[in-house]
Amino acid sequence: MEKLFPDLSSRFARLLADIAGQRIAVVGHARPDGDCIGSQIALARVLRARGHEVVCVNGDLVPRRLRYLVGDMPFYLTDDTPAGDWAAIYVDCADHARGGEKARKRFPAPVAVIDHHLSNSGFAPCNIIDSTSAAACEILAGLFLDNAIDIDPGAARALYAGIVTDTGMFRFNSTTRRTFMLAAELVTRGANPSEAGYEIYERESPAKLRLLQRFLGSLRYECGGRACVGLLPDGVFEQTGAEIEDTEGLVDYARCIDGVDIGVLIEERAGAIKASFRAKNPVFRVDQIAAQFGGGGHACAAGLNLQGGTLADFRPRLVAALAAQFAAMEIKN
Amino acid sequence: MEKLFPDLSSRFARLLADIAGQRIAVVGHARPDGDCIGSQIALARVLRARGHEVVCVNGDLVPRRLRYLVGDMPFYLTDDTPAGDWAAIYVDCADHARGGEKARKRFPAPVAVIDHHLSNSGFAPCNIIDSTSAAACEILAGLFLDNAIDIDPGAARALYAGIVTDTGMFRFNSTTRRTFMLAAELVTRGANPSEAGYEIYERESPAKLRLLQRFLGSLRYECGGRACVGLLPDGVFEQTGAEIEDTEGLVDYARCIDGVDIGVLIEERAGAIKASFRAKNPVFRVDQIAAQFGGGGHACAAGLNLQGGTLADFRPRLVAALAAQFAAMEIKN
Ligand SMILES: [Mn+2]
Ligand SMILES: [Mn+2]
Repeated sequence: MEKLFPDLSSRFARLLADIAGQRIAVVGHARPDGDCIGSQIALARVLRARGHEVVCVNGDLVPRRLRYLVGDMPFYLTDDTPAGDWAAIYVDCADHARGGEKARKRFPAPVAVIDHHLSNSGFAPCNIIDSTSAAACEILAGLFLDNAIDIDPGAARALYAGIVTDTGMFRFNSTTRRTFMLAAELVTRGANPSEAGYEIYERESPAKLRLLQRFLGSLRYECGGRACVGLLPDGVFEQTGAEIEDTEGLVDYARCIDGVDIGVLIEERAGAIKASFRAKNPVFRVDQIAAQFGGGGHACAAGLNLQGGTLADFRPRLVAALAAQFAAMEIKN
Repeated sequence: MEKLFPDLSSRFARLLADIAGQRIAVVGHARPDGDCIGSQIALARVLRARGHEVVCVNGDLVPRRLRYLVGDMPFYLTDDTPAGDWAAIYVDCADHARGGEKARKRFPAPVAVIDHHLSNSGFAPCNIIDSTSAAACEILAGLFLDNAIDIDPGAARALYAGIVTDTGMFRFNSTTRRTFMLAAELVTRGANPSEAGYEIYERESPAKLRLLQRFLGSLRYECGGRACVGLLPDGVFEQTGAEIEDTEGLVDYARCIDGVDIGVLIEERAGAIKASFRAKNPVFRVDQIAAQFGGGGHACAAGLNLQGGTLADFRPRLVAALAAQFAAMEIKN
């Protein structure tokens, strides 16, 4: 089989040689997602099989729906990382800060970073970064295959989960021929598509569906139907019994409507405003809209936090910013 | 490359030889889905490239979200099929009746059937049936590759759409290593995952989301939370502006809740009751539950129609049937 990542794979081989015998902390990002947890577990399993003592470290707990992947792999909150020296490898983190401030202090000099974010300019002696990959798990799967490193069923399931979640079930434009080839290889090695589908997408709580119902009821169209804005008002979590984690994916319902170019979720909570943006096309640069309110992100997915903001104040400013962005694009095109 | 369907592929090659020069009607099923339309378009394009005059025939129109696949391929409602002799090839139809009563009269002797339903025992001289395939489109993609038949971009996109929809975005347990290998091959030939994602899943109508909101608000748990039943009451289509087509996928919201084994959608309309069942696991045999009310289907997906039924009468009978099914399974295990 031809090499999927020829350069990166030899870099990874050198990394493995360099860290031989060391204790390794595989560090992921705060509010970890499927690609983060999947990358951590897969890399940690491979390193453990090579004789390393390994821990996985995050600023937040493994989300409920991803716990089926953990098995006997030790996960620690950053503060609880066992004492002693650990060589840190960051995964799915666009920069050092993405692992959290605590992790930055605990692991001031990571030995490597393995990531797929376009904005990642590298922050370790060994940077294994490929922004054409749909997921950090896609890179890792390729590195393992290229180097003929055994992918055990636990690693295959973890890598598969990362690819599924970061591609929105093979739907985002990051999904390529290589993504599917790797999925086929992972299924051969023990990944189970229906298990992932069940664990990640078919174990919703009744409260989550109540939250979705409320969100759908709040949808309003702006800018002639090109933007759709949904609201989670203060108190909705108490009223529905939903958790913060349950907001995941809601904004996609605002985006998925025909004619809508940008979907927005506004969360109003305890005197603060949080907003998430999702565009159908990177041309809409929602990161630029978020930046006007001190936020940021990617061209298709961005967010912001306004301390002390009120909805009455924020909403008209948001609509004006959306309208200005659409107008600016008209002029460009 | 090794052959994916060695026996079926040589059978398909003989079929192509047998029908040389004939006018071909590619017949799909009533209320066509992505796999049906995708199979029809892909097979029709391949046959047309081989010099056949080809039409696609269905009992119902191509659904809105699948129209992006049609291009210049002629689709006809059965009654409108152009006059003259057509050799009929049925796709994605478990039996001859699935194409509709009108098609059965218009095409009383199909020359071939290409399908993946377990219950299909064959109803043509040439039966190309493989129930291990996730979609009829998976079979067709394999037949074309095995026979080194060119898959043009229009056929690749159609086959890809059929695989995506019949696997619930690569999530159902029919999804295998082969499914992903074929997806990779189709992407190489012009299928575009994000185009399919956009066209099929990101062009919802506001009315559809209003219908979803109503459905979510109606969810009730039965049998200690093992069943979840949602209701579309008489008049809900008028109130939300939704169309019948918009009910597609709603029942999955009843099923996707943690602890729920069977999701049910009840549609009450003009003195009739329609119900759809979806199980997480085939062990629950929802086809047996549906059969008690004159319905049928698959172990994980079944439905029924009760003419003259009322909700007040049906609902307690349904709950009793669900409870009896759960109880029967306890005894078995
Ligand atoms: Mn990622
Ligand atoms: Mn099918």
